Amino acid sequence: MLKDYYFGACLPTFGNCADRYCQGGYKRDFTMDEMLDRSLEVGSIDGLELVGNWHVNDGNVREVAQKFRDRNLKIPMLVPDLWTQAKWGKGSLAASDAATRQAAIDEVRKVMDWAAELDCPYVDVWPGQDGFDYPFQADYVSAWSWLREGIAACAGHNDQVKVLVEYKLKEPRRHCFIDSAARTLMLLDGIDNTGVLLDVGHAMAAGENIAEAVAFLNAYGKLDYLHLNDNYRAWDDDMIFGSVNLIEDLELLYWLKRVGYQGWLTLDIFPFRIDGVDAAKACQSWIDGLLNALEKVGQASFDVAVASGDPVQAGVIIREALGLGR
Amino acid sequence: MLKDYYFGACLPTFGNCADRYCQGGYKRDFTMDEMLDRSLEVGSIDGLELVGNWHVNDGNVREVAQKFRDRNLKIPMLVPDLWTQAKWGKGSLAASDAATRQAAIDEVRKVMDWAAELDCPYVDVWPGQDGFDYPFQADYVSAWSWLREGIAACAGHNDQVKVLVEYKLKEPRRHCFIDSAARTLMLLDGIDNTGVLLDVGHAMAAGENIAEAVAFLNAYGKLDYLHLNDNYRAWDDDMIFGSVNLIEDLELLYWLKRVGYQGWLTLDIFPFRIDGVDAAKACQSWIDGLLNALEKVGQASFDVAVASGDPVQAGVIIREALGLGR
Amino acid sequence: MLKDYYFGACLPTFGNCADRYCQGGYKRDFTMDEMLDRSLEVGSIDGLELVGNWHVNDGNVREVAQKFRDRNLKIPMLVPDLWTQAKWGKGSLAASDAATRQAAIDEVRKVMDWAAELDCPYVDVWPGQDGFDYPFQADYVSAWSWLREGIAACAGHNDQVKVLVEYKLKEPRRHCFIDSAARTLMLLDGIDNTGVLLDVGHAMAAGENIAEAVAFLNAYGKLDYLHLNDNYRAWDDDMIFGSVNLIEDLELLYWLKRVGYQGWLTLDIFPFRIDGVDAAKACQSWIDGLLNALEKVGQASFDVAVASGDPVQAGVIIREALGLGR
Amino acid sequence: MLKDYYFGACLPTFGNCADRYCQGGYKRDFTMDEMLDRSLEVGSIDGLELVGNWHVNDGNVREVAQKFRDRNLKIPMLVPDLWTQAKWGKGSLAASDAATRQAAIDEVRKVMDWAAELDCPYVDVWPGQDGFDYPFQADYVSAWSWLREGIAACAGHNDQVKVLVEYKLKEPRRHCFIDSAARTLMLLDGIDNTGVLLDVGHAMAAGENIAEAVAFLNAYGKLDYLHLNDNYRAWDDDMIFGSVNLIEDLELLYWLKRVGYQGWLTLDIFPFRIDGVDAAKACQSWIDGLLNALEKVGQASFDVAVASGDPVQAGVIIREALGLGR
Repeated sequence: MLKDYYFGACLPTFGNCADRYCQGGYKRDFTMDEMLDRSLEVGSIDGLELVGNWHVNDGNVREVAQKFRDRNLKIPMLVPDLWTQAKWGKGSLAASDAATRQAAIDEVRKVMDWAAELDCPYVDVWPGQDGFDYPFQADYVSAWSWLREGIAACAGHNDQVKVLVEYKLKEPRRHCFIDSAARTLMLLDGIDNTGVLLDVGHAMAAGENIAEAVAFLNAYGKLDYLHLNDNYRAWDDDMIFGSVNLIEDLELLYWLKRVGYQGWLTLDIFPFRIDGVDAAKACQSWIDGLLNALEKVGQASFDVAVASGDPVQAGVIIREALGLGR
Repeated sequence: MLKDYYFGACLPTFGNCADRYCQGGYKRDFTMDEMLDRSLEVGSIDGLELVGNWHVNDGNVREVAQKFRDRNLKIPMLVPDLWTQAKWGKGSLAASDAATRQAAIDEVRKVMDWAAELDCPYVDVWPGQDGFDYPFQADYVSAWSWLREGIAACAGHNDQVKVLVEYKLKEPRRHCFIDSAARTLMLLDGIDNTGVLLDVGHAMAAGENIAEAVAFLNAYGKLDYLHLNDNYRAWDDDMIFGSVNLIEDLELLYWLKRVGYQGWLTLDIFPFRIDGVDAAKACQSWIDGLLNALEKVGQASFDVAVASGDPVQAGVIIREALGLGR
Repeated sequence: MLKDYYFGACLPTFGNCADRYCQGGYKRDFTMDEMLDRSLEVGSIDGLELVGNWHVNDGNVREVAQKFRDRNLKIPMLVPDLWTQAKWGKGSLAASDAATRQAAIDEVRKVMDWAAELDCPYVDVWPGQDGFDYPFQADYVSAWSWLREGIAACAGHNDQVKVLVEYKLKEPRRHCFIDSAARTLMLLDGIDNTGVLLDVGHAMAAGENIAEAVAFLNAYGKLDYLHLNDNYRAWDDDMIFGSVNLIEDLELLYWLKRVGYQGWLTLDIFPFRIDGVDAAKACQSWIDGLLNALEKVGQASFDVAVASGDPVQAGVIIREALGLGR
Repeated sequence: MLKDYYFGACLPTFGNCADRYCQGGYKRDFTMDEMLDRSLEVGSIDGLELVGNWHVNDGNVREVAQKFRDRNLKIPMLVPDLWTQAKWGKGSLAASDAATRQAAIDEVRKVMDWAAELDCPYVDVWPGQDGFDYPFQADYVSAWSWLREGIAACAGHNDQVKVLVEYKLKEPRRHCFIDSAARTLMLLDGIDNTGVLLDVGHAMAAGENIAEAVAFLNAYGKLDYLHLNDNYRAWDDDMIFGSVNLIEDLELLYWLKRVGYQGWLTLDIFPFRIDGVDAAKACQSWIDGLLNALEKVGQASFDVAVASGDPVQAGVIIREALGLGR
């Protein structure tokens, strides 16, 4: 099997992990250099995502570039920080306060410029704080307009860097405005230099079938990048890819190959109580195992089963792929 | 308060109610005449939805018209039957079998012609059987194309009757293709003579905020018709409107007034263990009660609270509207 | 591998399948003889569950016994019909109407007597209609007392036949009183001749981990019988076992072996759009495949991983079991 | 209306609020004195819960007592910290490591002694870290035994202070062992000096009806204390009580009065983006408003409706209670 994707991870995979109870994290803090070095221990990481302000800032762009060159790592994605500071708590691109909206646009643009400097092709706009918690809290119409305007204002800033939007049903807001693949396509409709970041756990927790999300986004030319993780369908648990919804994860990889996706498969996991290197290796093993399983039975056998619409026939092939007889 | 909407119900509201266990239903069967007469007992019903084949067929169109004229009832909606017969079990407009797809289009067109004859402005295309149950069962790309082609083929048939599409996340399939407001708008993009039927229980069970769905669909000019009911967010329980999610139901009515909706509010409830007339009256009482509550505090007071984004302020007005002090 | 369980199915697995929309079912109706014959086509069925009134009645007990003897099939379970008739719509053992409660007890006792006559060791009391749909609908305290009294009245009737209680969070009621493993144990506390029927799909949809349910019920000596199926965690989808939650299904089988369960694994699936024989064969293949996978890596390897509490280590063994490398 | 309950709050209600993204919190940090003073601004707080180590430690018990006396506030509850430090990440009372289990017991006992010194009647044992994230991660049988042993070891330590156990389905673990009212009663069976802390949001997110939880726990003599908050049924959103599930919150209060509960109603909310004083006042207004509404229609009218099992009749009274006509 030829590896036909890039394998990435969010840098914090290799750092500490906190939740709202254990705010100091379940592990120790790691320096950026330590996290970079730890990522190399996985043995197959091609690049790492960085978060603006956390990892990159105006003063350290060249230094960051050097750190990555030294380790032969790419930077596939910079994530503007629109969600870790109190100032975005009531919204970023869709805040009702105009100055906050402008600040969010400025933040994204600044990170786009860093990205250009770092040969990083994408920024990930995740409007996680743009949503609402209570009934009667949001002006849904204005919010939608502001989001469209904000994305357009960002996308037009620097055509060397593509603006990807990541959707999520909820958290940190109880409802986020950009909650599904279709809503995201509506958001981006008519705005050039944009695409979608599909976080498969977000899709799963939003009630989507993750393979369908791949096929749907690809059909509209907007499947640009993936985040991999897993969960129990009700929340963004950010678990090891493959560890829960194995069959749908297999279907995901099948459809990625079917649509010819050859981009990044980047881990966005929160290994709260597990060493990050171990967790990333486990994800890599699941991905490789499932890709090998696909190759073993052949894409074409699944093509036939899918065309038939017969789940019994598909089940035979799945069991064969997983060494479970027929 | 001037009543500025039409109050409707699906005819089976006044009939028997079966589920997959109690297939004979929890009540007795009623004839169409009985159901029509029972609807009048509610005292405020303006019209009733009918399902193709169940209630209307080639042989009885004039007779049906007469039944409605006799009772001074309108027919706001005909629903092509794409979901009660085994032949649609593996899909209707998106079936992998081409003949089935054509039969589904023919069915919709036939019902559109009946609608025209009955001065009924809409048909409700609910592709409830178009979806999948198992991983690896559906060809998502073909299904999407077939749905788009099918809707276009229907919509172009008779411009006296508008084709509305009703979305639902699941049931009777474990996943339905047309699962959200945004997905439905994508489906209808560029197809004239189409709109959306928002079933608020479907929206709720799909993880949407129902008021947001109203605002969003209206912003795209596609909020054509509503089905009212209630549920516990996880399934289409089809309960009495207002009986569970009261505050969000209030927000729904507020947004309907805010966007100037003056169309049909039609009950789509399954009162399994309750008399249908009683259940419909209860829905009517909730709607009236909530509209009066809105009027009591004034739309404008909520406008200010929503603009502020402050849920504490909104809470004061909600409590005032509900006679709970401030 | 020695087969150390009995493989069963509910008889309707091999019949027609209706839901609340397609009330005539997605397939044709089958006679009891046809269903019995079809069960033999699976090739490994040891016995079949029957529902009182549907399949067994006062007039046909000997005839039924003969049908089973002729086919060398056992009857592991009779299910009193407390859920398919309108008379139970507002409750059976916990109905607020005393006569209905007594009728439910009488129904169970009658079926227990049939069971004794048929050498059937268990009856399955599933109080699916005992619950509520709306807030302020149920007197929770009385209902609980009535359920306890009812179960006791049944259990004391005939000590040749054990009364098993099957729990489910919802459906056909929006909330059922007996909703979890722990609630069921509370219900049965101090009542002899009772046990629990664990439907793994019910447990999954109630938010339980199915292996934990096995371990927990067994620890209290009440793991008497299992229903197998699968779902997407939110509803009792009654799908092919193994088809969705494969890893948790593997964990289930591991714990069944660990606690030494050697009883019935009975399919309770609703193969709406799939031939019942095919669906049952598919379930059998998943069970066999997973049991072989367990044997391949050895129970002991999982024992060590579980004792370690390390999901990375467990993942290695799971991948090995599923032929996905390490 | 005579107020017949004590109104409390967890002290952090009046402090900062962080989540896993915005780890610095959405507000500023407040000192303990500030939080205590802020609680007085609510105007009706009778007492505050404190968390061990966060707010109380060996060195400050007398000082804390003085702070409360000075403000005429009670301490209804101390919460041993079994969930904010990395050392409990893999479990506390049910950790597979014996030394950790003993440390957890010691921690609870220490806090019980502080409680005795502070005239605080209860400690809240919330085993939030005792659970599992992945399949094949937990030895369910041992965990259950360890939990039972641990609770017994705590409960026997100091009979001046009662050990209450708080249940929750998930978070911070993806599955917590003590997940429901019934499971908690099983846990406490036969162990003196114990009771249950019912967090109504936890119950709601676990699929329970919160009024049923009240009735059920009270029937077993174990309804000792309540935490109030609200959510969207899928997660412990810790929102303002009354703000989402108003009708079920009304039913909760009705049942609290019906069973004669006269203890603490303590807020356990996370007002991430709202001032804590405002949020607590809002909760107080909802509680008062709903209690007044109950008084207006009279408990007895609901008694009759509940006895009838008729949701239509109950609906009339609910609308009347909420000033929505009949």
